[in-house]
Amino acid sequence: MKLTAKGAATRQRIVEGAAAEIRERGVAVTTLDDVRARTGTSKSQVFHYFPGGKEELLLAVARYESGRVLDDQQPELGELSSWRAWHAWRDRVVDRYRKQGQHCPLSVLISQLGRSTPGAQAVVTQLLDQWQAEIAAGIREMQRQQKIGASVDPDQSAAALLAGIQGGVVVMLSTGSTRHLEAAMDLGIAALRGSARG
Amino acid sequence: MKLTAKGAATRQRIVEGAAAEIRERGVAVTTLDDVRARTGTSKSQVFHYFPGGKEELLLAVARYESGRVLDDQQPELGELSSWRAWHAWRDRVVDRYRKQGQHCPLSVLISQLGRSTPGAQAVVTQLLDQWQAEIAAGIREMQRQQKIGASVDPDQSAAALLAGIQGGVVVMLSTGSTRHLEAAMDLGIAALRGSARG
Repeated sequence: MKLTAKGAATRQRIVEGAAAEIRERGVAVTTLDDVRARTGTSKSQVFHYFPGGKEELLLAVARYESGRVLDDQQPELGELSSWRAWHAWRDRVVDRYRKQGQHCPLSVLISQLGRSTPGAQAVVTQLLDQWQAEIAAGIREMQRQQKIGASVDPDQSAAALLAGIQGGVVVMLSTGSTRHLEAAMDLGIAALRGSARG
Repeated sequence: MKLTAKGAATRQRIVEGAAAEIRERGVAVTTLDDVRARTGTSKSQVFHYFPGGKEELLLAVARYESGRVLDDQQPELGELSSWRAWHAWRDRVVDRYRKQGQHCPLSVLISQLGRSTPGAQAVVTQLLDQWQAEIAAGIREMQRQQKIGASVDPDQSAAALLAGIQGGVVVMLSTGSTRHLEAAMDLGIAALRGSARG
């Protein structure tokens, strides 16, 4: 659907209002009426932008929350061009998840939509692909500066680091502790630093 | 509840039957009646062993499935005393999850019970603790043989490797590919191997 600027703004207001409502009250109890009330929109407006109803809106909220996951790591994630930047990124990621705690809005939405539904899979795959591409770009930049060894495979190392972050977050959602997340990032970055001496 | 040998066997039969039913048909549609029919047990027997009903049975099934996660990695996980054993363990883990595919019974159960409920948290925490302790024991054994550097912190490295495995599995549940799991294990083990040369 091609939207006018005003239409896009209204749609975005509905998505952001739904995201806030879901963060505060949970996905199960949030209704389209709650979202309408919060965003000051009418039934026909919500239906116009989300003809598929609650499920279509939830998918849009999942896309919005997945964008926030990357935005919250900027500018560091997009500029991994010095060890100082890598460690600042590490601190930002740990800090983000520590603040977020055991309630991960994106994970709740994906599980509500059904992890294996095409829509949910597309949101997760796109997030992981972009996240990994930004890490790999940082590795390539450090290789250009000869700060990471030429034998390192940027995509494999980025995949391993991303897996460590995902696992660290999953463990935190169960245990409340960021210890695994920190261990995975610290040792992943240390391995990259060590590669230049190899 | 203290059980006789016969009682423990009946209880175990109910748990295993419920696990098989849930693996085949899914947790949402499996009823206590299905489990009774499959295991040839009576309503009063099921109530005797699981007075809390379906939720208590699901928790027992989650405990059973979490035991299988570790059992499926044996004997390699318990004997990480040579690089050959580490790589055999790596292959066994990747193979297990590749065969399991995008349907993880334990993850489904934990999400059904509610990730943040005390019962589900206890199952996950105990599984992660034991898994990590076995990896750390392998690192300590390799340090004793001077095949892993003395400066490596066994608990931190085991936590990072476990995070990589968890993240690799989570990514696989969404994407169907074991690439992240393999990258995390391969680079995690390579970092441990490299530490002896440090």
